[in-house]
Amino acid sequence: MNTQPEQARHIIRFCQGQLSQVEDTIAMEHPVTIKINGEEFVTLVCTPEFIEDMVIGYLASEGIIRNIQDIQRIWTQEEEGFVHVTTNRWNPLHRQLFAKRYVTSCCGSGRHSFVYVNDARTAKHTHGEHIELCYADCFRLMNTVLSGTELFQHTGGVHTAALCSNKDVLLTRSDIGRHNALDKILGHYLRQGLTPKHNTIVLSGRISSEILLKASKLGAEIVLSKSAPTSLAIDLADELGITAVGFIRADVCNVYSHPERITAD
Amino acid sequence: MNTQPEQARHIIRFCQGQLSQVEDTIAMEHPVTIKINGEEFVTLVCTPEFIEDMVIGYLASEGIIRNIQDIQRIWTQEEEGFVHVTTNRWNPLHRQLFAKRYVTSCCGSGRHSFVYVNDARTAKHTHGEHIELCYADCFRLMNTVLSGTELFQHTGGVHTAALCSNKDVLLTRSDIGRHNALDKILGHYLRQGLTPKHNTIVLSGRISSEILLKASKLGAEIVLSKSAPTSLAIDLADELGITAVGFIRADVCNVYSHPERITAD
Repeated sequence: MNTQPEQARHIIRFCQGQLSQVEDTIAMEHPVTIKINGEEFVTLVCTPEFIEDMVIGYLASEGIIRNIQDIQRIWTQEEEGFVHVTTNRWNPLHRQLFAKRYVTSCCGSGRHSFVYVNDARTAKHTHGEHIELCYADCFRLMNTVLSGTELFQHTGGVHTAALCSNKDVLLTRSDIGRHNALDKILGHYLRQGLTPKHNTIVLSGRISSEILLKASKLGAEIVLSKSAPTSLAIDLADELGITAVGFIRADVCNVYSHPERITAD
Repeated sequence: MNTQPEQARHIIRFCQGQLSQVEDTIAMEHPVTIKINGEEFVTLVCTPEFIEDMVIGYLASEGIIRNIQDIQRIWTQEEEGFVHVTTNRWNPLHRQLFAKRYVTSCCGSGRHSFVYVNDARTAKHTHGEHIELCYADCFRLMNTVLSGTELFQHTGGVHTAALCSNKDVLLTRSDIGRHNALDKILGHYLRQGLTPKHNTIVLSGRISSEILLKASKLGAEIVLSKSAPTSLAIDLADELGITAVGFIRADVCNVYSHPERITAD
């Protein structure tokens, strides 16, 4: 497995009527297969960096593990693109649940139907209105996150997600799959024995229902996006008590749900 | 199932320091469950229009059916969000293959590993260099497709794909999942007993490996994108003999593979 997030390639560029051969930077897209207790579980296609974080975040997000203590060992077989996990939380029921395919609109993760939604509903009660941002904070956080992500700027081919707390950007991850970027953030905190709470999640891409649910698992009270939400994502944000803000560009943005957390100044 | 592709919602808009309550147009995101011979097969989350086309395109793209004759009956149970398909091509092996999850970076479709890639490789030999575009054609086709898609312009939350032949746009579809947009195009042609060949595919979004393989199934010789390709997509385009052109914006674009089909004027 090539663990570089980007790769140089010779391409032909047409610019204002002129052709030239230039070196361009391309986002890597790489399959990583998770083996649980020696059994092949799932193959994720991702940007090959922070892979073990992604695997831990993915397994937690899918309900296979609850916390880092549920993993006895995790190791990467780089050449073959395998990440091996041993856990005593694995049982044949998981395999059955996962056999029910659920193809989301945005970025992957076949889901065992609405188990996830119910799961998120139970998470609702741990939320509250602990944080507030003003509109200027929304624009500033979006600018900080997007201007700080080299991979995004070099290749234009990746999604960026960041976890912010108390008006500061704490952790930013980029990936060709936006769900992977969130899993990488979740895995990072779980590895430290932390459960993120009362955060703002900043996204370069769209807010789909799957992304909103992943943000909820990350303890998001506010989700800021440069792009649009879907109808289902707004319904879920309404229900889960999450403030969804979209189309954050220059000095314009839209608040789709729970506007009480966004103040005028 | 609500079969409107978009929905009006009251939102709060912040614009240049002013707050107002406005009605905004949001892209619908809706789960559609495919039942094959009465058995639940997969749930796709999509924009609810051209749903039977999408189902037919999806089943063909996944190798469950080869052509429209393999479907004995297809009907939609709107209220429940089910599309029922009866076919005598279904066998338990399919279920087994699909139990092996493959989560792609871009837009869903759990894949049975590289079966699809091998599949596409066999398709290679039916390709040739039957079409040519000049750079001006690339810019014109991209403009025509993007300016013609109302859903894209209203909601900002969907991906658009179009099939073009002989320098003309023949069919455009939009969906919150870009793989769905391509499946809707494939299904449209299969229903008419047609197998698309020697086309140009135009995409509003990124070229991931999955999208490139779907374009290949649609007979694409040229893929034009407003956005970036991934490294794996370029590798596949190289191998499959497909010309990949990305970052088509104003009068700039990049050619990533098989530049021989793009001429200077």
